[in-house]
Amino acid sequence: MDIDKANAEATERMMEARPVVIGMGKSLDVIPGMRENLLLHAGPPITWERASGPMRGAITGALIFEGKAQNEAEAQALVEAGEIELEPCHHHQAVGPMAGVTSPSMSVYILENKTHGNMSYSNLNEGYGKVLRYGAFSQEVLDRLRWMEDVMAPILGKAIELSGGLDMRVLLAESLHMGDEGHNRNKAGSVLFTKNLAPNIVKATDDAEVAAEIIRTLGDNALSVLNPVMAACKAMVDVAHDIEGSTIVSVMARNGTDFGIRISGLGDRWFTAPVAVPQGLYFPGFTAEDASGDIGDSTITETAGIGGFAMASAPAIVTFVSGTPKDAMNATLEMYEICFTEHKYFTIPPLDFRGTPTGIDIRKVVETGITPRINTGIAHKEAGVGQVGAGLVRPPMEMFEGALVAFAEQYGF
Amino acid sequence: MDIDKANAEATERMMEARPVVIGMGKSLDVIPGMRENLLLHAGPPITWERASGPMRGAITGALIFEGKAQNEAEAQALVEAGEIELEPCHHHQAVGPMAGVTSPSMSVYILENKTHGNMSYSNLNEGYGKVLRYGAFSQEVLDRLRWMEDVMAPILGKAIELSGGLDMRVLLAESLHMGDEGHNRNKAGSVLFTKNLAPNIVKATDDAEVAAEIIRTLGDNALSVLNPVMAACKAMVDVAHDIEGSTIVSVMARNGTDFGIRISGLGDRWFTAPVAVPQGLYFPGFTAEDASGDIGDSTITETAGIGGFAMASAPAIVTFVSGTPKDAMNATLEMYEICFTEHKYFTIPPLDFRGTPTGIDIRKVVETGITPRINTGIAHKEAGVGQVGAGLVRPPMEMFEGALVAFAEQYGF
Repeated sequence: MDIDKANAEATERMMEARPVVIGMGKSLDVIPGMRENLLLHAGPPITWERASGPMRGAITGALIFEGKAQNEAEAQALVEAGEIELEPCHHHQAVGPMAGVTSPSMSVYILENKTHGNMSYSNLNEGYGKVLRYGAFSQEVLDRLRWMEDVMAPILGKAIELSGGLDMRVLLAESLHMGDEGHNRNKAGSVLFTKNLAPNIVKATDDAEVAAEIIRTLGDNALSVLNPVMAACKAMVDVAHDIEGSTIVSVMARNGTDFGIRISGLGDRWFTAPVAVPQGLYFPGFTAEDASGDIGDSTITETAGIGGFAMASAPAIVTFVSGTPKDAMNATLEMYEICFTEHKYFTIPPLDFRGTPTGIDIRKVVETGITPRINTGIAHKEAGVGQVGAGLVRPPMEMFEGALVAFAEQYGF
Repeated sequence: MDIDKANAEATERMMEARPVVIGMGKSLDVIPGMRENLLLHAGPPITWERASGPMRGAITGALIFEGKAQNEAEAQALVEAGEIELEPCHHHQAVGPMAGVTSPSMSVYILENKTHGNMSYSNLNEGYGKVLRYGAFSQEVLDRLRWMEDVMAPILGKAIELSGGLDMRVLLAESLHMGDEGHNRNKAGSVLFTKNLAPNIVKATDDAEVAAEIIRTLGDNALSVLNPVMAACKAMVDVAHDIEGSTIVSVMARNGTDFGIRISGLGDRWFTAPVAVPQGLYFPGFTAEDASGDIGDSTITETAGIGGFAMASAPAIVTFVSGTPKDAMNATLEMYEICFTEHKYFTIPPLDFRGTPTGIDIRKVVETGITPRINTGIAHKEAGVGQVGAGLVRPPMEMFEGALVAFAEQYGF
C-alpha cells in the first residue's frame, strides 16, 4: 500500500475543494440528521457529566433560547434524562466555534463545495466577550441571539442568495495576504465578507435602519467570517476523509474536556485525550486561573492548512495571542515539518508566497515529536461567564500515537 | 541653530496630526483660493507647453467635464490664452493622485486635522484603468465622473456627516497591519473605509439600488481610500512645514514633467528636476515604451512615512509593483537611513512593530546618496489612454542637493 499516494489524493482533494456560501437556513431544516431534541456541540462526543463549564453554559443557553429550559438545573435534568440528546457537530457536516452548540431553531450558513458537491454548515458569529459559544447565557446574550435569529438571519440569507454565493477559498486566499491567518485573526476576511454582502443586504430589506444595523454588526465584528470560514474548512477536510491508506488528519476538535482527532484512512473513529489549557493573553480582570480547557471546532482551520499553520501571514496577531512576530513566522515554519504538502491556493507573502503547510501527517507528528500549533480563544472555566482571552495551545501527542498504532493494526504493518 | 531640534518639532507635529474626513463639498465652495477659471493639478507648477501627455489628457477631460471645451485643441487654446489657469493642488491645501486635475465643480473630501486645526482636500477616486487621473477622457470616463459627481458625492458626503467623521490616522494604522502600505496597496484601507461608511450610506438615501451601487463602487475599488489617505498625509505634512531651521521634506510631488520638493525650513520654494520613468510591471498589451514620466501628488504618502517607506508591511504588493517580499522589506530598512525618526502610530508588524521611517532629512539623503523609494502607478505617455502599469521610482538627487545648498545659504553655514 502506498501511503504517500493516498496522502497525495487526500490533500489534493482538500485543496481542490471550493466551498461557496450559498444561503442560510434553520438547522432543523437543513442540517442532515438534525432533530427537535438534538443539540450539536464542538469536539468529540461528550456527556453532561463530563462537560466543561462553558459547554454546560452553552447547552443551558441554547435550551433557554429554544424555550425548553429556564436555567442550568433544568437543562441538566433534560440532558441527563435523555430528553435532549448531544451529538458532535462533526457528525452532521457542521462545525461551531468554542462550545459550538447549535440548536434546531438556530440559523446556519449553508456551504456547497462546488468541486465535489458536499455540503457543510456553521452557525452565526455573535462577536466577542459575553457570548453563548463561550458559555455565557445572560438575558443580554439571549436577546442578541434572538435578534440575530429573527432579524439578521433572514435578511443575510436573502443577501447571500442575491449575491449568487460567496467563494470562501478566494476570500481566504485574499485575507491571508491581508494579515489574517483565518482562525483567531479574521479581521480582513470579515470586512471583505461584509463589503461583498453589503450591497445585497441593502436590497434584501425595505428597512434602511435594519440594513444599516446588520452591515454594522457584520463589519464591526472581526470574527464575523470565522463561522463560514470554519464551515469552508469542514467542506475541504470532509472530502479528504475516508481515503484508504491515508495518514492525514481530517478532523481536530475539542469539547472543553477531550481533544479528538480523526484520520482519513481510519474511518469515523475518534482518537481522544484530555485537553490542555491554552497559554495566552487575558482580558483585563482575568488570569490563567480562570481558563477553561481547550474547546471548539475551530481547529478545523489548522486541519485545512490555515489558522496557526498560516501565522506567518499574520504577524499582527501576536498582540492578541501573545508572542512576537518571529514566533509567528516560526510557527508556520515548524508546521511544514509535520505536513504532507504546501497549499496550492493559500500562500504566504512574507515566505515568498510559499503555500501554507497543509495536511497533517500523523507519521510525521510522531516521528518528529512536533504537535500542531493552534491559535484559539480562551473561555472562562465556569458556565455563564464567557471569553476571557486568546492564546496558543497544542493537542496531546498521545492521540497521534494512538492513531498511528491503530493505523498499523488496521493496515497490517 | 539646532537643526535636530527643529526636525524633532517638525516630525512630532507631523505624527501628532490627526486628520479626520468630515464631509464633502464642491471644490469651488470649499478649497481655499479655488476659482471658476482654475484647474488644480499634481506636482509643482506647469504650463501646457511643458505638460506631459497624461496631464494634458486630464486637463482636457476636466474642461469637457466642466462644459468649457469639447476636445484637446479647445482645451489647449483656453489654457494657452490664459482663460483657464493652472495651479498646483499643493498651493491650495489639496492633493490629487496622478495628474491630480481637480476642477471647480468636482466634489472633494474635506479633512480636518483635529490636533492642529488645518484643513486638507482631495477628489474622489475613479478606480483603475481608463480614468481621468491617468489622462483618459473618453465618454465612458466622463460618464463615470458625472455619476460620481451627481449621484455618489452627495450621498457619500451625507454619510460621512452622519458617521461623525472618519479618523484617517486610525484607519491607516490598522490597514498597515493588514498588508497595506497606503500608497499603491490600499486594499484593506478601502474595505475598512467602505464598511465604516456603508451603514450611513444606507441611511443617506431612500434609494436602495443607489445605496447598493455606491457601496459596491467603494468596496470593489481597492484604491477608493487613496484620495482621503493622501489628503490625510497632506494635513500631516502641512503642519510640519515652515519650521525654522528644519531640513525635513514637507512635500514631494510630480506633474509628469518635473519632480518637485519643498523643505520645512525653506518656505514655499519648490526645488525641481526632470522626472524619471518608473520601473515596474505593465498591464497586458503595454510595455515600458508606453510609460509616461513619473506623475502625481501621491508621493505625499512617502513624505508622511507610509507608501514605499512602509513596504515591509505589504509584502503582497510585489505582485503589483514588481520585486520580491525581501525587496519590500529592504525598501523600508533602507528608508530608515534617510529619515529623522520612526513613526509613533504607524507600525510594521514584521519588524516587531517598529515605527515606519518618518521625516525625510535632506542632510541624510545627500550624505548617504540614498533617495526616497516611491511606489507609483504608471500612466501612458499619450493623452487619452490611461493607466498602463505600476512600479517603483526614485526622485532625482539633484533636488535634494539643491535644497541643501539653499538651506546652507539661507541659514548661513
